[in-house]
Amino acid sequence: MFTYLPFDQVKNISVLGTGTMGASWVSYFLAQGYNVSAWDPSDGWESRLRTFVDTAWPQLESLGLASNASKTALTFNNSPESCVANADFVQENAPERIGIKQELYAKIDHAMPDHTIFSTSTSGLILSDLVTSVDTAHRFVVGHPFNPPHLIPLVEVVAGQKTDPAVTEWTMGFYKHIGKHSILIRKEVRGHLANRLQAALWREATLAVVNDLASIEDINAAMSQGPGLRLAVMGPHMIFNLTGGKGGFEKFYSHFGPAMEEWWKTMQGEPELTRELCDAIVAGLKDEAGSRTIDDLEAERDRKLLNVLKAVKD
Amino acid sequence: MFTYLPFDQVKNISVLGTGTMGASWVSYFLAQGYNVSAWDPSDGWESRLRTFVDTAWPQLESLGLASNASKTALTFNNSPESCVANADFVQENAPERIGIKQELYAKIDHAMPDHTIFSTSTSGLILSDLVTSVDTAHRFVVGHPFNPPHLIPLVEVVAGQKTDPAVTEWTMGFYKHIGKHSILIRKEVRGHLANRLQAALWREATLAVVNDLASIEDINAAMSQGPGLRLAVMGPHMIFNLTGGKGGFEKFYSHFGPAMEEWWKTMQGEPELTRELCDAIVAGLKDEAGSRTIDDLEAERDRKLLNVLKAVKD
Repeated sequence: MFTYLPFDQVKNISVLGTGTMGASWVSYFLAQGYNVSAWDPSDGWESRLRTFVDTAWPQLESLGLASNASKTALTFNNSPESCVANADFVQENAPERIGIKQELYAKIDHAMPDHTIFSTSTSGLILSDLVTSVDTAHRFVVGHPFNPPHLIPLVEVVAGQKTDPAVTEWTMGFYKHIGKHSILIRKEVRGHLANRLQAALWREATLAVVNDLASIEDINAAMSQGPGLRLAVMGPHMIFNLTGGKGGFEKFYSHFGPAMEEWWKTMQGEPELTRELCDAIVAGLKDEAGSRTIDDLEAERDRKLLNVLKAVKD
Repeated sequence: MFTYLPFDQVKNISVLGTGTMGASWVSYFLAQGYNVSAWDPSDGWESRLRTFVDTAWPQLESLGLASNASKTALTFNNSPESCVANADFVQENAPERIGIKQELYAKIDHAMPDHTIFSTSTSGLILSDLVTSVDTAHRFVVGHPFNPPHLIPLVEVVAGQKTDPAVTEWTMGFYKHIGKHSILIRKEVRGHLANRLQAALWREATLAVVNDLASIEDINAAMSQGPGLRLAVMGPHMIFNLTGGKGGFEKFYSHFGPAMEEWWKTMQGEPELTRELCDAIVAGLKDEAGSRTIDDLEAERDRKLLNVLKAVKD
């Protein structure tokens, strides 16, 4: 069995695809003191990436940089092959289309060193479908982050059918080593886990629009001014462990379980995602946003998110 | 039409039922400078309530007390009738059983002053079912808080069939006046809105246990280390407004809507809440808690929640 690199010998990280997710990953890896080698096929990507890193840097500084972190440890490549040639670890963020990813994987399959571990940020695709023709598939794994990856700790790690279990274990450990919170998803399912939880929440939030239960702004506040505040602190099962008071989760389960089951019965079906529904949500969001532009809202989200990240650290 | 009190003339608030929710409400109203008149039918409630207020007070202090706030503005009553006799506003937190609430309402129906507005904390019952025999039903409304009410801003306001629209409007405004974030739920449905959103999330989090998708600890982290951090900052529709980048919600809707619909198709049915499932979750929570007791976890939640509340304030 091949032995993978000890974490402290990892120096070079390659990032393939530098859109929103990739650029955020680049910023994070630089902040952790790695040499980052980047590639993207689009026009003008280098300057967009520089701008992203410049914007993210003060945020990363406020969370704490590695002692050797430098924005200048970033190199730009004009092919995926050259990008991964010296990689100890690759984070891939190509568009979510199976053909594009397969084509990219074919190019870098034999361009990576033998010890390189290749992690894909895919949110919606199944790894085993992507690596059918890849010779080094045992070193491929899913490392799915949340937007924006340079701020949100969560990374979902999922093995494909061909993934070496040692690679999965290495990847779980490496993300932790660099300060992320990696969790192990035991099966290849659409949306992994966290996006399914989000989708379940959004389904009900959208049914609330369809059923005219409240304004868009009030539906948003129903989470962000209520249960959402607790979900930044603890996960759903642990929250209910405390809802049970001294009796813990057992008490919650016997006391509130029947109510949950009754509510679930009335929470069936799904909204039809029509043009009208989209218009209604857009209009409601416009009311809520008032004079704030998308850029303003994004800046507000990141500013508050930084504060929240510091708030939940012990 | 009777005119209700201007908010700044409200001086006396009655709290009926001082379990976890009621005691937290008492603490909050005291911190906002009101005279609070309390009643509970259980043995030893007075000392438990004192202890609760003493524990909550430093937290409330750190969020900012009203200039006239005092822990000594609390009086204990030995009947619900005497408790509400001078009330400008009543917050009721009796057990979630229709018979108990109906019996209590019959007692205070004619014991309240003519201008008093009566708000019930009920999470699972329908107001119109509770006030069928109440003569003053037009002054009854739902004001449903989230645990713990002295920290979480959200209050869901719901009118019953007999509620005077002016009472609903007054109650929305009064909660805002005292620093809560009130939202208007337009229909009487089981679980109002926020609990339905929570129930949708917990259904999927529980299906993840049943399907062995990840450990309990990792399922919790899938929210609290990921999307949960954002949900403390903005609600689900606004979050996705930003997922769309410069294109906003429209872009998200056209780009990710089809994926959502595909995931939803695989997210059907509900977990059966068996003994074995409860045991599995309890065991997982025990692993996650390690040496932390319920009291430790509760203190941790409240400490971090306070930090988060400060973090999201602009």
